[in-house]
Amino acid sequence: MPLEPTTFLLPEDAIPTHWVNIAADLPGDPPPPPLSPRTGEPAGPDDLTPIFPMGLIQQEVSAEPDIAIPDAVRDAYQLWRPTPLRRARRLEEALGTPARIYYKWEGVSPAGSHKPNTAVAQAYENAEAGVMKLVTETGAGQWGSSLAFACSLFGMECEVFMVGSSYDQKPYRRSMMQTWGATVHRSPSDLTESGRANAQHPTGSLGIAISEAVEIAAQSPDTNYALGSVLNHVLLHQTVIGIEALAQMEMAGDRPDVVIGCVGGGSNFGGITFPFLREKLRGDRELRFVAAEPAACPTLTRGAYRYDFGDTAGLTPLMPMYTLGHDFVPPPVHAGGLRYHGDSPLVCALVKAGLVEARAYRQNETFEAAIRFARSEGIIPAPEPAHAIRAVIEEADAATEAGEERVILFNLCGHGHFDLSAYDAYLAGTLEDPEFSEDDMEAALARLPEAPALT
Amino acid sequence: MPLEPTTFLLPEDAIPTHWVNIAADLPGDPPPPPLSPRTGEPAGPDDLTPIFPMGLIQQEVSAEPDIAIPDAVRDAYQLWRPTPLRRARRLEEALGTPARIYYKWEGVSPAGSHKPNTAVAQAYENAEAGVMKLVTETGAGQWGSSLAFACSLFGMECEVFMVGSSYDQKPYRRSMMQTWGATVHRSPSDLTESGRANAQHPTGSLGIAISEAVEIAAQSPDTNYALGSVLNHVLLHQTVIGIEALAQMEMAGDRPDVVIGCVGGGSNFGGITFPFLREKLRGDRELRFVAAEPAACPTLTRGAYRYDFGDTAGLTPLMPMYTLGHDFVPPPVHAGGLRYHGDSPLVCALVKAGLVEARAYRQNETFEAAIRFARSEGIIPAPEPAHAIRAVIEEADAATEAGEERVILFNLCGHGHFDLSAYDAYLAGTLEDPEFSEDDMEAALARLPEAPALT
Repeated sequence: MPLEPTTFLLPEDAIPTHWVNIAADLPGDPPPPPLSPRTGEPAGPDDLTPIFPMGLIQQEVSAEPDIAIPDAVRDAYQLWRPTPLRRARRLEEALGTPARIYYKWEGVSPAGSHKPNTAVAQAYENAEAGVMKLVTETGAGQWGSSLAFACSLFGMECEVFMVGSSYDQKPYRRSMMQTWGATVHRSPSDLTESGRANAQHPTGSLGIAISEAVEIAAQSPDTNYALGSVLNHVLLHQTVIGIEALAQMEMAGDRPDVVIGCVGGGSNFGGITFPFLREKLRGDRELRFVAAEPAACPTLTRGAYRYDFGDTAGLTPLMPMYTLGHDFVPPPVHAGGLRYHGDSPLVCALVKAGLVEARAYRQNETFEAAIRFARSEGIIPAPEPAHAIRAVIEEADAATEAGEERVILFNLCGHGHFDLSAYDAYLAGTLEDPEFSEDDMEAALARLPEAPALT
Repeated sequence: MPLEPTTFLLPEDAIPTHWVNIAADLPGDPPPPPLSPRTGEPAGPDDLTPIFPMGLIQQEVSAEPDIAIPDAVRDAYQLWRPTPLRRARRLEEALGTPARIYYKWEGVSPAGSHKPNTAVAQAYENAEAGVMKLVTETGAGQWGSSLAFACSLFGMECEVFMVGSSYDQKPYRRSMMQTWGATVHRSPSDLTESGRANAQHPTGSLGIAISEAVEIAAQSPDTNYALGSVLNHVLLHQTVIGIEALAQMEMAGDRPDVVIGCVGGGSNFGGITFPFLREKLRGDRELRFVAAEPAACPTLTRGAYRYDFGDTAGLTPLMPMYTLGHDFVPPPVHAGGLRYHGDSPLVCALVKAGLVEARAYRQNETFEAAIRFARSEGIIPAPEPAHAIRAVIEEADAATEAGEERVILFNLCGHGHFDLSAYDAYLAGTLEDPEFSEDDMEAALARLPEAPALT
């Protein structure tokens, strides 16, 4: 009996040659610029050159619709790209839906998520600029391990400040970084002023870890900083996901009615959606986009659209985005990659423009969805894409109710091999379902820096 | 610049339609039969029907060279097969070798290793026979999680007895099994006579866990037992690895001079090598096979070729194999999947016949090889295939010395995401390098059951 087509694979020469720069196709006025934290004026390259190489700064501000991917980056992508696109036939069957569900599977990278798509691009541009070492922060460890992997490919040193509580709870992520040759510090450390000044917060925070990494990077001309989400160039690098998915949906002979991704800083969401969004913007194709975020940190659904700092300490440029306040501390949900007070300015502008719908989900309902997925499709998802799966199931149920054969595409951005203690807690019925505190947000919003209003 | 071909992917309709039954092509006399533990006579179906379905027993004893893969099993294989074949260009470069190194990457399965290749085939045959539940043992957890995954696909219950020390040390493997819906017991348990009789050994052993699982399976007609290696039908199922690799090496335009795999019970080694071995046996193709095992448990390199039990307690048929003695307890190396006193009778017969070379490696040198691999190819290997990588580097170095462009193929049978504490120990310089005890082996061999001599 012939097999029903389920997996859609591209040959390796289909690894994209260009990234999609959605900024070039956005309708209406250009998005408001980031502002220098020193002057309050639009931030220029001078605000960025101490910690980023010019190649990345040019990508950050480019108005070109397509940006060439360097050969060395495509060569590194060959280690895991193109990634598979799969039809979730067994999940469809389990849901009893007429919808056809597809997912792009980014967990096949060595680090286990989509993060290496930008890590290798950033390591390459820094290596080209003669930078010998990259420094970064990491929370749960996905980003830190991706950068450690990327630096090992380009012969660079890598130093990671890992949030103290994660350093203690996720020793395997730390081992992974060390296996690729990186040096990992527990943050707050006594290696930096920012670390020593925060010794009274022994569990650390992403904000403190960023400050430590930026401080180290700013001290030395051959050391730079790298960020794993939020910025335009990071989302740009991630568009390889959506470019491949466009070709793979064509192989499958299907066109999505809705494209879904989870959102923390916005990089996997931008990666899967921007190439499809450009198709929509250039044609009159009917196509919806859904951003799934945690109810414990509901930036897009409950935040204010304001200028705010990207980090807790207030060292970064002010960015125009939905924010819960840069010193808002989200409850400790397991989807560590989604615990961010703000979001990519590009994604925020799209939500503001009504081009992207945002939905927030409680922790337990996302794990329920993840286990349903694992028991039908096999793969155990990371807690972050479990939010996307929750939204997929909602969309499939809506298709069932409407009796319509809708086509759903989502990005399965990583596996949950380092998150199994959370599954344990869910199965034992002891997983917490923390609520968002509106009071905390209001207080944090009252502490926003002065800046022009956004409309 | 065009990319250099690196990854060789097959379309999903290239998922094999038949398994390769190497027994049909072996030269010389047929291999000696297993013997019933009750009668000492050749074991018949009656020795197996209480715990295995007839479909698997027929595969176990078949003389057909090609055995059809059921549609439902091919359909389940679609969840991760065909797996990639990759050329390790970056490793070649790091080694400075003229050798071309290829690896088959089996870690893309949901459970992270090659084990699901046989788990889904076994679950299917049992489901077809009306069996509602499978019971098994697991050490480090690779096999238990693969069977849990397979049972979830066929709507069967799954019960796993996990060796006590692993149950305590590897809680994530347990969580993985539970996520797929399995029930996991710490062995020795108080659920079985064998468990209660061994309450004085709280850390448990594979032998005790097998006895517990077999005891449960034998009690109920709708419950069967499943084994993850050693038996003919298990190696048969794994030949999908080598069948795909044959086609992929052809895509690459290369022919291996040597095929390498690690050996514990023999299933991943048989899986990658048997289809190539059949080519060799049917033609006069020059081709070597290397089996890599731990020096701490050197069954093929130091064991005696004798009839011995497959389990510690002496419940299984007597099998003709290299053995260190069924109650030999190997030192606790991290490659848990290679800590087996015996080996697949098929693989043993091939070593005996001089068709397979065996080599033993110390734990630390295998981790050194694994880290070299991780830092060039990205993937962090499980400790078991790290033994194969050690052999690959030896073969590549030999090619360098000879100045020859040899082609090396090996099976990368799983990732090391659940073994990172071992990497930690290696990097910290605290990884033990336990020695094999010849005295313990001699004592264990003196306790072998009475049985005809093997020649």
